[in-house]
Amino acid sequence: MAAGSAALGLIAGGGDLPPAVARSVREAGGDVFVVALTGSATEPWVADFPHIFLSPGEPGRIIRALREAGADKVLLVGRVDRPKFSELKLDAKGMLLLPRAIAAARQGDDALLRFIVGICEDGGLQAVGVADAAPGLVTGEGPLGKFTPDENARADIAAGFRIVQALGALDVGQAAAVCEGLALAVEAAEGTDAMIARIGNLRESLRGTAAHRRGVLVKALKPTQDAKTDMPVVGVETVRKAHAVHLAGIALEAGGSLIVDKAAVAAEADRLGLFVVGVRP
Amino acid sequence: MAAGSAALGLIAGGGDLPPAVARSVREAGGDVFVVALTGSATEPWVADFPHIFLSPGEPGRIIRALREAGADKVLLVGRVDRPKFSELKLDAKGMLLLPRAIAAARQGDDALLRFIVGICEDGGLQAVGVADAAPGLVTGEGPLGKFTPDENARADIAAGFRIVQALGALDVGQAAAVCEGLALAVEAAEGTDAMIARIGNLRESLRGTAAHRRGVLVKALKPTQDAKTDMPVVGVETVRKAHAVHLAGIALEAGGSLIVDKAAVAAEADRLGLFVVGVRP
Repeated sequence: MAAGSAALGLIAGGGDLPPAVARSVREAGGDVFVVALTGSATEPWVADFPHIFLSPGEPGRIIRALREAGADKVLLVGRVDRPKFSELKLDAKGMLLLPRAIAAARQGDDALLRFIVGICEDGGLQAVGVADAAPGLVTGEGPLGKFTPDENARADIAAGFRIVQALGALDVGQAAAVCEGLALAVEAAEGTDAMIARIGNLRESLRGTAAHRRGVLVKALKPTQDAKTDMPVVGVETVRKAHAVHLAGIALEAGGSLIVDKAAVAAEADRLGLFVVGVRP
Repeated sequence: MAAGSAALGLIAGGGDLPPAVARSVREAGGDVFVVALTGSATEPWVADFPHIFLSPGEPGRIIRALREAGADKVLLVGRVDRPKFSELKLDAKGMLLLPRAIAAARQGDDALLRFIVGICEDGGLQAVGVADAAPGLVTGEGPLGKFTPDENARADIAAGFRIVQALGALDVGQAAAVCEGLALAVEAAEGTDAMIARIGNLRESLRGTAAHRRGVLVKALKPTQDAKTDMPVVGVETVRKAHAVHLAGIALEAGGSLIVDKAAVAAEADRLGLFVVGVRP
């Protein structure tokens, strides 16, 4: 976002991605106005930016706040927990749209995110993707640190992308782990962190060990996923978790995933002996 | 298997399926000779049948034992753990075939099973499927107990079959759980029991509760799976585990899965309020 243009309206859920986007936009000279979603975004980082806390059940107030802040573009990032509709704070528009929101939420988290962004677009705001707003976060092609996948790992990367694409087409998950041809774990509703953690419970003959790391974590954009609302994200913690279950490395969809703090991820991967590589599948 | 015909050679791994097959054949008037695989089959049931314990690394001895027992047909069922090749007891033929066996094992459990059966076929034995040897165990179409899936559950069953077929085509897993359109869990190397158990860790808004059971476990034959060596299996324990994580029921591929003790499964499902249904996808 070039200096002087209108502010980016950042509707922020939880996790490390919203602050990374906000900082990246500011570093590039742009302005950011943050709508922090109550129940999802509770982190103190929002105090560094002009912001307001609103419920996902208040789309009327969200649109009004963004307009008053001079934002003409809107971006929703971060983890948005499916709200308990019985406890949700609603404005008039939210009440009107609630039946559609509940229906969307039942179809999966992606559907709920698309629904919220859709309401903002109906309200005259232009939805933009993270890749447009903060291009510095997008995974590039090739290795990020000093380690690179060997022949076994390259075969596992190819197998992992096949699995993630097949699953992604059904809106199931965006991550899988493969070790020497065997699918160790596949992500569904539990999320990537829980998926990685359970690899440690598999018997040793199937997976890597501290003495001999093997297997690869693959993350890719779901074909059903809208890059404007949701892209796979990794950060330093992902590298640490992959290391803890003795994987050899991480492969990410180049152009279709985000890395929070590339320098820190590269340094941690180098320190722990893992590769992190962007691959165009 | 009709009475008077040659014995069935049952190469038995672990779990409930091998004894169920052996008993089903005997009840139909057939003879069974069991090769219990050391390291996998350690259960006392084999004492009820003529048997021998041999290592999966002794294909020469396995073929000889089956021939001496008058078996001309061979069936491998049950869980076969990937052996630690460094600890494997080998005969001459096993030593000769070890490099191929290791390569097969790396391609997944199915490949290892197909490899063992292939050696028996090379040795002049005819491989038969469970469906031929013990047709009473095969899942039929329709409900097994008194409960049937409602409209939500029928939609989840259809979604579950789509996921399992996509995954199965990549030799990943044979089970998934879906709740109101959301994929709760997908099976990879951890196996169905571990997959079911982790549904209980998901937040309540995504899954069923004791007060309101919802979501369906789906098991189907992988397209890569050879029905002669490996079909999905459920039993009374599967019903109990599905109940423990508040699923509404279980859907199985009719003609492409096995039920150990149908009467007991139906009774337990009725007692716990779950449906168990065979579906031709």
